Amino acid sequence: MSRFAIGVDLGGTNLRVAAINENGGLFDQVNLLTEVEKGREDVVDRLSSGILQLVERWKNVYQLAGIGVGIPGIIRMKDGILVASPNLPGWENFNIRAQIARRLNSPFYLENDANAAALGEKWIGSGRNCDHLCFLTMGTGIGGGLILNGRIWHGVAGMAAELGHVTVYPDGRPCKCGSQGCLEAYAAASAVVIAAQEFLKAGTASPALREAAASGKPLTSALIHQLARQGDASSIAVFQQVGKALGIAIANFTNIFDIDVFVLGGGAVDAWDAFEKSMFEEVPKRSYVFRNDPRRILKSHLGNQAGIFGAAYLAFQNLAS
Amino acid sequence: MSRFAIGVDLGGTNLRVAAINENGGLFDQVNLLTEVEKGREDVVDRLSSGILQLVERWKNVYQLAGIGVGIPGIIRMKDGILVASPNLPGWENFNIRAQIARRLNSPFYLENDANAAALGEKWIGSGRNCDHLCFLTMGTGIGGGLILNGRIWHGVAGMAAELGHVTVYPDGRPCKCGSQGCLEAYAAASAVVIAAQEFLKAGTASPALREAAASGKPLTSALIHQLARQGDASSIAVFQQVGKALGIAIANFTNIFDIDVFVLGGGAVDAWDAFEKSMFEEVPKRSYVFRNDPRRILKSHLGNQAGIFGAAYLAFQNLAS
Repeated sequence: MSRFAIGVDLGGTNLRVAAINENGGLFDQVNLLTEVEKGREDVVDRLSSGILQLVERWKNVYQLAGIGVGIPGIIRMKDGILVASPNLPGWENFNIRAQIARRLNSPFYLENDANAAALGEKWIGSGRNCDHLCFLTMGTGIGGGLILNGRIWHGVAGMAAELGHVTVYPDGRPCKCGSQGCLEAYAAASAVVIAAQEFLKAGTASPALREAAASGKPLTSALIHQLARQGDASSIAVFQQVGKALGIAIANFTNIFDIDVFVLGGGAVDAWDAFEKSMFEEVPKRSYVFRNDPRRILKSHLGNQAGIFGAAYLAFQNLAS
Repeated sequence: MSRFAIGVDLGGTNLRVAAINENGGLFDQVNLLTEVEKGREDVVDRLSSGILQLVERWKNVYQLAGIGVGIPGIIRMKDGILVASPNLPGWENFNIRAQIARRLNSPFYLENDANAAALGEKWIGSGRNCDHLCFLTMGTGIGGGLILNGRIWHGVAGMAAELGHVTVYPDGRPCKCGSQGCLEAYAAASAVVIAAQEFLKAGTASPALREAAASGKPLTSALIHQLARQGDASSIAVFQQVGKALGIAIANFTNIFDIDVFVLGGGAVDAWDAFEKSMFEEVPKRSYVFRNDPRRILKSHLGNQAGIFGAAYLAFQNLAS
């Protein structure tokens, strides 16, 4: 009897639960809305029901290997408490592990969503066949996941891989985390908009960017990317900033870890063509290690499904070891 | 019959070989000079003779657990080739492992010296009883060693933990590694002198620093430290730069790894009193992880003996696992 695992990806908007086999085949999926406004107990109810529904549906066909749940935010691994979560307002200090456990009545693996996505990419994504991987998810903010020797690196308190909050420019833009000059403040989708606004405020914006800003349409990362593709100088410069900041951070990670593969995921990776040149120029400049032994920097293969695959893989991996 | 190991620390000036027991007791030591100018074959001859001498002297009293050799420079672990070594000019691409092996006729562990020192501090130094440790050795340059799960982290090619070459100021001072704004360019002993010279050139140096520079005595990190202790404003500012750069780097390492302990070693740590305040101020500012769960930043306990203990411990550790 072949085995399956349940993977869950809880996002700020969508709540997805999938049944996945050992070969990485996703054969059933339940798509729900998170609806944070209904309260955290309600969200956990739906999340748990989704899991139980798929378990019931398949448990007599395949053997259940286990359940993995990816959650956005910093989880204190020792007690399962969600310490902070920008995407789940009001969930701070919520014992998410205990809440899910009470409803499931069976063991499961709880994991930070970016860590889960990193593991998904390592299993069947861009990091297949590599042992060590660094994953950056570029959305409104920047999250990170670190795979060392094939497993998620948690650190002492489970707070490792806060890669969006490494300092890139010590005297740079303020960041939501309380610091300044963080990678997130220069390479997240929100940073793209801020960089464009800086050009506008400084009066140095190109005509096309000024026109777009004056049109009344909201200035988004996607719109600025479109302008960059059309050759707009300011928008091109904005994404050069993104690429340079990514390059500095990836060079540092290379000097620190000397690992195989970097994978960039998240919505902001759609602008890859606009930032890749400056990123690939910057890394070797700043890393002796990279110059001597170049490493791969790749786009995510699994896209927004990386987390759900990684969550399921937690169950298979822990069985195997 | 209790056991002993041989630890070797090959430096640019000194070559030390020690016999150490399982409890970390160093009971015999041979101190030699490296004398690089005599050629690398000659140095390896002396290094190997030193080892064989101690093995012969003690092998009938205690059981030999193994031999560990710490070497300055980047070693490609897969083939034992010294890729680069600022302290051993002319040794680039030298197969140090094969050369030692030919003379010893017995197995041994080869390791980068900063990695060995990190392991020494983890064994019986400032990192006792911790599983994860980040070690910075601050001398003319800055080296690094990373202990994860109690063992040295090598990375894919054995080039991990080039911690002196993480970028701290992207547009900062040029660094010998070919990059600019590296930690080494702001916190090594050589950087202390450069920072003082910058004040002098800019005409903003305090009278005491100007006087010291005009005296004809060479401007050293130790002299500038002495001036800082005497209250000289420019010298104090120089070490504030050092502390801030260290703080930025340590905050980044905390955000990336979430590990227990940071240990600072090397001669430049003598100026701890002059840089600690700005270092300890900077880290929590730049690390959410550190603010929520402060980690220890400590001076090296073993000083310049850390490497020799770590080299010996390689043998004990590999027997135990």
